[in-house]
Amino acid sequence: MDEQEELKPETEQVEEDEKLTTEALHEMIVNKDIQGLRETFLTVQDADIAEAADELETTDLIYIFRSVPSSSTASFFDYLNQDAKENLIAALTDKELVKIINEQAADDVTDFVGEMPANLARRVLLAAKKDMREDINRLLNYKEGTAGSIMTTEYLEFIDTMKVDEAIEAIREKGKGAETIYTIFVRDRKRDFVGTVDLDNLIFASKTQRLSEIMNKDVVSCSTLTDQEEVAKMFRRYDLSAMAVLNEDHKLAGIITVDDAVDVMTAESQEDLARLTNMEPSTKSYMDMSAWENAKKCIPWLIALLVLGTFTTMILNRLESQAIFTTMAILTAFVPTLMDTGGNAGGQTTGLMIRGLAVDDFGPKDWAKILLKEFRSALIVGAMVGAFAFLWITIEQYTGIVNMGDISGTGDITNPLNFDGATIWNGRVWTAEFTEHALIFSGLVALTMFCSIVAAKLIGTLLPIGAAAIKKDPALLSQPLLTTVMDAATLVIYFVIACAFFPAYA
Amino acid sequence: MDEQEELKPETEQVEEDEKLTTEALHEMIVNKDIQGLRETFLTVQDADIAEAADELETTDLIYIFRSVPSSSTASFFDYLNQDAKENLIAALTDKELVKIINEQAADDVTDFVGEMPANLARRVLLAAKKDMREDINRLLNYKEGTAGSIMTTEYLEFIDTMKVDEAIEAIREKGKGAETIYTIFVRDRKRDFVGTVDLDNLIFASKTQRLSEIMNKDVVSCSTLTDQEEVAKMFRRYDLSAMAVLNEDHKLAGIITVDDAVDVMTAESQEDLARLTNMEPSTKSYMDMSAWENAKKCIPWLIALLVLGTFTTMILNRLESQAIFTTMAILTAFVPTLMDTGGNAGGQTTGLMIRGLAVDDFGPKDWAKILLKEFRSALIVGAMVGAFAFLWITIEQYTGIVNMGDISGTGDITNPLNFDGATIWNGRVWTAEFTEHALIFSGLVALTMFCSIVAAKLIGTLLPIGAAAIKKDPALLSQPLLTTVMDAATLVIYFVIACAFFPAYA
Repeated sequence: MDEQEELKPETEQVEEDEKLTTEALHEMIVNKDIQGLRETFLTVQDADIAEAADELETTDLIYIFRSVPSSSTASFFDYLNQDAKENLIAALTDKELVKIINEQAADDVTDFVGEMPANLARRVLLAAKKDMREDINRLLNYKEGTAGSIMTTEYLEFIDTMKVDEAIEAIREKGKGAETIYTIFVRDRKRDFVGTVDLDNLIFASKTQRLSEIMNKDVVSCSTLTDQEEVAKMFRRYDLSAMAVLNEDHKLAGIITVDDAVDVMTAESQEDLARLTNMEPSTKSYMDMSAWENAKKCIPWLIALLVLGTFTTMILNRLESQAIFTTMAILTAFVPTLMDTGGNAGGQTTGLMIRGLAVDDFGPKDWAKILLKEFRSALIVGAMVGAFAFLWITIEQYTGIVNMGDISGTGDITNPLNFDGATIWNGRVWTAEFTEHALIFSGLVALTMFCSIVAAKLIGTLLPIGAAAIKKDPALLSQPLLTTVMDAATLVIYFVIACAFFPAYA
Repeated sequence: MDEQEELKPETEQVEEDEKLTTEALHEMIVNKDIQGLRETFLTVQDADIAEAADELETTDLIYIFRSVPSSSTASFFDYLNQDAKENLIAALTDKELVKIINEQAADDVTDFVGEMPANLARRVLLAAKKDMREDINRLLNYKEGTAGSIMTTEYLEFIDTMKVDEAIEAIREKGKGAETIYTIFVRDRKRDFVGTVDLDNLIFASKTQRLSEIMNKDVVSCSTLTDQEEVAKMFRRYDLSAMAVLNEDHKLAGIITVDDAVDVMTAESQEDLARLTNMEPSTKSYMDMSAWENAKKCIPWLIALLVLGTFTTMILNRLESQAIFTTMAILTAFVPTLMDTGGNAGGQTTGLMIRGLAVDDFGPKDWAKILLKEFRSALIVGAMVGAFAFLWITIEQYTGIVNMGDISGTGDITNPLNFDGATIWNGRVWTAEFTEHALIFSGLVALTMFCSIVAAKLIGTLLPIGAAAIKKDPALLSQPLLTTVMDAATLVIYFVIACAFFPAYA
């Protein structure tokens, strides 16, 4: 009964957003409420405490680590941001560091040590016990982004001749330090990796069976050099909870668990999102980034796009001197719309490609099939949007949303334009010439849009697929290149069609 | 030794991409190679067989289900695409259906039944055993996108007074049908949910302890109505492997396991990507979509953007009639560059907001802090990009990349433009007037860019945060609205500054 009363507020906590606040935590520290702090670490999720602690001073954090037993603060420490970790490591005594570091998993320590100034990294390595220090040093040698760099070396590996009851006993003894006990990795006497046993298989098996009899042999594994994105795809595809990472000799070098794979998936999709919005991806969370760090991720891409945009400026500048653009000022008014539509249509396709490649729905080898599908789809989209544009632009002209200016061909476009649609509608003689001109003009914009959409979707297919084919991140350059190419292409298409439709003004 | 030989090709398979091909599978079926088929199901991952089977005819699929024992094909069936499932369900006999359906998990069946024509759904429900049918019907009642709709009802729930050895025995007995045995859910005698016990805790506990003594009480849970995106965030935040889903009476209604949460994360990040590229997200994979379905996801957004773009057309059309635009044709040449830069700068910020909100880095309540940070960052970005633009546009003018046209103010802009920079450089008298004019013009574009970047970053912050505050998908309208607002705003800023900088032409 009591338990139930105690529990309700806790499970509902997440929904009602009654999270631990920084103020509450700070108050306990100021009041030296050690009991309250320890209680907090027993009842509140470590991730939530770490969030509340995010804005605490280092002195407050030190107080926490000095008052709460290190067994309770291990996972809390892991959740802290990099700056907080560095400040703590600089401020704590050697003895305190030894306690904290050795409660961590070697792979987590590797993650933050890798980004630390050398003097702090040295402190951490000195504090780590011999086994852990060796693990960290080994893990630090794997290139970032490989399976080796995200794997953990704390797993259970048993020989295939072991009996089920021996294995369960061994798990009881050695399991506490392992990252997972739900998957047991099995080697033969030559130390080659030969399979895995899930804990449930152990539980369901009879006690005298050997691991070799009950293990899964068709297991999915990767090498230490496998790209971490590839690893995440395998986790998603095969619904794995842990995966073996093998070295070149087919021996177990480490394991990757599903929570690490989830982190990679999140990071990769965040990276794709960043690329699609023309930003340098960041490994820091937004809240941990300063305004200056944030700006540094934005500026290079904006400048690159500005330089690439020079082609558009140049072409538009040249076209403006062409007779047809000087006589028909209305042409210019549709340039942004046409460019936007081309860019948007291509962006949709680029997005589809990046998503499909990210979840392994298809690969570069399927390019011909995909190009054909996108071409078909582009014809439909181009025809429908073009038809709508024809209608809409005709309406725009008749209602005076856009003013066609002087269509007499004298080049005098400075006469006052009508801001009021009614004047055109009623006051202007609605001649057959006007109607013909308006419809031809709508046709010009609609046809340009059709061509531009089809071109954009084809380029939007080829850029990311091409990047993937040469093993580059499909999101890296696709979007900016697409915009640049399409802006320029749309202008040229527009000009050519305009000259064909209105030869009198060309 | 033998095992080792057998294994090597399998574990390396994924890397060398030696996957089972559709042809290989089809050949076994044509040759009625039942032994080969059964062997394939024992040695190849179900996800890989399903991929190879993706393009098989229904008759081939039927042959597979008739030749391979239903225990081997259960998970293979789940991996098949919706169309294949529907075709199979229509074609198989009642007896065969009973076998296949009852090997599935109720939540998986619910997923595909929910999207099926009524007559096929009825066949499935008839084939399902009573318990499963009840589960499916219950799950079908939860609104799509809620925790209830993705939870499974196959879990182990024990009473808190149970002893550890009893629990292990109960797991051995009942665990086979459960989605996970790694987390045991604990209720009290009032059937209220009171905590969880991880299998490793059971293994490490002494046999006579009661579950109430060893269970985790501060567990994270959600309600059947919790948004699935919220559920995925909790899995990521707390590194969970399974989570309890409670009904309004605080009783266990089902559980969600990490693989379902991974599916939600993938779907949500795919949806964000789709929204950012102005597409309707699809629940189907790209390869399963027809060209027409694909086009249907693209067209509405392109048309909506086209209509929204009318404002830009209207403003540009009006501005072109202003004296300054008719005299200084060069102004128009920079319109796309300015609009693109504004749109890109805002898009970066929108992307940051969508990502931060997606991973719960911040929430709408932090809006003031975020707005301040983005404002600071916008000042830096605006100043740097503006400074670069000043330099770059000066270069463009001196090298003749853009031609300034006639700056005498007579309005005669039809005189031939120089395509060759050298002509300008050498042939033209490089007067003090030209220099002054060029520098003022660069200043105009640079200042417009600065204002436009700052405005874009502020709007790019407020749109997604505002959407999240009123519980709407921040990615849904942010990007298109941003583009539209910024295109129009940039034009107006440009015009106002141009009139101030070049009063002689205004």
